[in-house]
Amino acid sequence: MADISPTGAPAEIATLLRWDGAGLVPVVVQDHSGGEVLMFAWADREALARTLASGQATFYSRSRKGIWVKGETSGHRQTVVEVRTDCDGDVLLYRVDAIGPACHQLRRSCFSNRVDRDGSVHCDRPVVS
Amino acid sequence: MADISPTGAPAEIATLLRWDGAGLVPVVVQDHSGGEVLMFAWADREALARTLASGQATFYSRSRKGIWVKGETSGHRQTVVEVRTDCDGDVLLYRVDAIGPACHQLRRSCFSNRVDRDGSVHCDRPVVS
Repeated sequence: MADISPTGAPAEIATLLRWDGAGLVPVVVQDHSGGEVLMFAWADREALARTLASGQATFYSRSRKGIWVKGETSGHRQTVVEVRTDCDGDVLLYRVDAIGPACHQLRRSCFSNRVDRDGSVHCDRPVVS
Repeated sequence: MADISPTGAPAEIATLLRWDGAGLVPVVVQDHSGGEVLMFAWADREALARTLASGQATFYSRSRKGIWVKGETSGHRQTVVEVRTDCDGDVLLYRVDAIGPACHQLRRSCFSNRVDRDGSVHCDRPVVS
């Protein structure tokens, strides 16, 4: 896919991104200080606009089919320090300050499962308070 | 989506993962030592099996419609230190040792574009040798 060509114009992100057929792009969420990859979700135009305006990580929930402000019910909000996109503009990266667990399993990161060379899977991350 | 329930059985990853309608899962690639998110790609069953067997980051190229061993032509290979998956098994994380740039733009990471609050986009990462 061709690379995007940013110009620095306000609001250009909405048209630079390659939204998929459902109007979504994947979002990788990374801890800003420690670098841990915390979770993976999706954003539509509104979720991204709200994230940029509010500084609170906001997604589109494919299961609930609507806007999802991370932590709105759990209290485990994520303050967005930086939003980035990749060379061809089909993925977003939210770099966040996260209070408590990012995962509904109450683990720091959703990526709690290690896959070994033999294809076996092992949950090796503790539950956090 | 329901969480996966790993048992530690060899080869279980192939059936635990929630492959999408095209038989793919997204892959987040992260630098093992520095934690930088380097790129985002996709894997099919074969790409994951090859990654686990060879220790070389291998993907499915949606544009070329085939297996893609990272660095096979560029020389910028990625040695996989760890493969992880998330709570509901619909994303993979490759933690890698990467020689040189991960991006075809010859930048360390593909996520070279910063998105500011006003929606403007700025490429703020240098080309590396």
